[in-house]
Amino acid sequence: MAAAVQTVPIVCTHKLDKQFFDSHTEEMRVPKIFRGVDIGACTSKWNAGYLAESLGDAKTTVHVCAEEKLDFITKNFQYKTLEFREYIRRSSRPLGQPLDDYFIDPHEKYYLRSLGEDVRKDTANIHEQHQQIAKDLILPQVFLEKQFFSSVLRIASPCSQLWTHYDVMDNILIQVVGSKDILLFPPEDYPYLYMRGDKSTILDPDNVDPLKYPLYCKTSPYRATLQPGDIIYIPALWFHNVKARDFSVAVNVFWKNLDASFYDSRDVYGNKDLMPAARAQQGVDKAIKTLSTLPAQYKHFFTLKIIAKLQQSLDD
Amino acid sequence: MAAAVQTVPIVCTHKLDKQFFDSHTEEMRVPKIFRGVDIGACTSKWNAGYLAESLGDAKTTVHVCAEEKLDFITKNFQYKTLEFREYIRRSSRPLGQPLDDYFIDPHEKYYLRSLGEDVRKDTANIHEQHQQIAKDLILPQVFLEKQFFSSVLRIASPCSQLWTHYDVMDNILIQVVGSKDILLFPPEDYPYLYMRGDKSTILDPDNVDPLKYPLYCKTSPYRATLQPGDIIYIPALWFHNVKARDFSVAVNVFWKNLDASFYDSRDVYGNKDLMPAARAQQGVDKAIKTLSTLPAQYKHFFTLKIIAKLQQSLDD
Repeated sequence: MAAAVQTVPIVCTHKLDKQFFDSHTEEMRVPKIFRGVDIGACTSKWNAGYLAESLGDAKTTVHVCAEEKLDFITKNFQYKTLEFREYIRRSSRPLGQPLDDYFIDPHEKYYLRSLGEDVRKDTANIHEQHQQIAKDLILPQVFLEKQFFSSVLRIASPCSQLWTHYDVMDNILIQVVGSKDILLFPPEDYPYLYMRGDKSTILDPDNVDPLKYPLYCKTSPYRATLQPGDIIYIPALWFHNVKARDFSVAVNVFWKNLDASFYDSRDVYGNKDLMPAARAQQGVDKAIKTLSTLPAQYKHFFTLKIIAKLQQSLDD
Repeated sequence: MAAAVQTVPIVCTHKLDKQFFDSHTEEMRVPKIFRGVDIGACTSKWNAGYLAESLGDAKTTVHVCAEEKLDFITKNFQYKTLEFREYIRRSSRPLGQPLDDYFIDPHEKYYLRSLGEDVRKDTANIHEQHQQIAKDLILPQVFLEKQFFSSVLRIASPCSQLWTHYDVMDNILIQVVGSKDILLFPPEDYPYLYMRGDKSTILDPDNVDPLKYPLYCKTSPYRATLQPGDIIYIPALWFHNVKARDFSVAVNVFWKNLDASFYDSRDVYGNKDLMPAARAQQGVDKAIKTLSTLPAQYKHFFTLKIIAKLQQSLDD
């Protein structure tokens, strides 16, 4: 379907500090897996039983979906709020084992992305919201302390798959329990991924209809399979689609790799477009509105003219 | 080079009024030649001697170019102001006959596009500026009187060729003396013509380097050869490249085919982008400037995102 798929390179190292990390990522800004890093006792301790007991009756809001592929565009899932103990029981059940007390479907999938204290204002911080288990985790110091943005706990059912999207901050995904398949695309693939906002409308990148998405074959995808203990670097703006092979527990750490002034202070997910980009887009939205006052043929023509100008600016 | 070239259809008619013209152009808005229309005595009277005598010592500013192809982008020509009598003598000399009193080159080409009384404020009007000869011309009434914008006298040396450009108003080119080859492209060809402003950077559309201009082959050109007395309809936004075969005299009539409020009141040529388009472009220019404050990779990414949005708006 797509052009040759590259494999995300793996760097085996016990020690992962900023200097080492920078030397492997700064120049190229492409995904990389760090394997063998000491991330603490979590890899051995965080089984379903331990997590259920440690996180206990704290409440959490999660995605519940009848299908494997969660789709934010058609919103094929529901949000449910339940106790962690309950969530772990549901999400950790083996593949193929139906649930009696399901919400939507006996084989429904679960996905948790932890949020901040005030979900609208605060970023997720595992050391604040989930101290009980965070103590088992050593976060590699691959950025300056002041750059820290969030540390997100992600717990997923076997075979659950998250939509292809991009974030605006560099981040590392620390795979603690289970394996995950990740498909990544470089930022240059934007025109070929049929994006809506920060999300691709291509729901299943492994089975893409070339008639519906003819440009997809122009993408330059990278593949990786994360094993427990692996840390993958996902550079800002890289599109990624993540599928849990097993019951999966991961911690995703985001940091502001650019000057803090570029980021939208209202962003709690790390996915709001940078401030100058958002301003530019507002200006262009207004331009599109202005063009729509023209008769159709003229609107079309001057839109083409503006596109050509933007394309020229890519080379400036 | 380009895809199949179409031929501009010819309609033979003695009478050309608004109703007849509309019935042949309104639905499709594609170029059309009207042949056999009564445009007055000009076709028989306007030889070089008559024009030199009639227009006499009135001054005019003209293009003088050492090459056949005038190029507004590199400005390979000079402007000279001279008497009409003198201009007609120079521009009407047969091909291959060198000039002794040349400005740049013994074989230099000449091109005159008449201007208004105040060249910065007024539009050209042959009945005002060149009454002496305008009396020989019957302008077909193919638009409402209030829509009239300008009537431009064009006098060109044999083999002189004008750059490919578009105008924003519907117009008819009335070929009075000599033959002209016209190559036209529909507005949809904008992305394939390597435009700068309203002008194509492809100087010789008959010999296009596919390595330099790989998209040119996607154009859908139309060809026409105008004979004395022919009237070609050039719809607004259609790109056109015009080459005189012989000493050529033509009158080009522009009118405001859209509501007058769309047009820039400062436009004296009929080629300033429509007001909403100009406003939209200003907004996008500002957006490009804003994007340029981002680091290169981010600027590139968000420009792609904005281009994708504009492309989506083409389908709206």
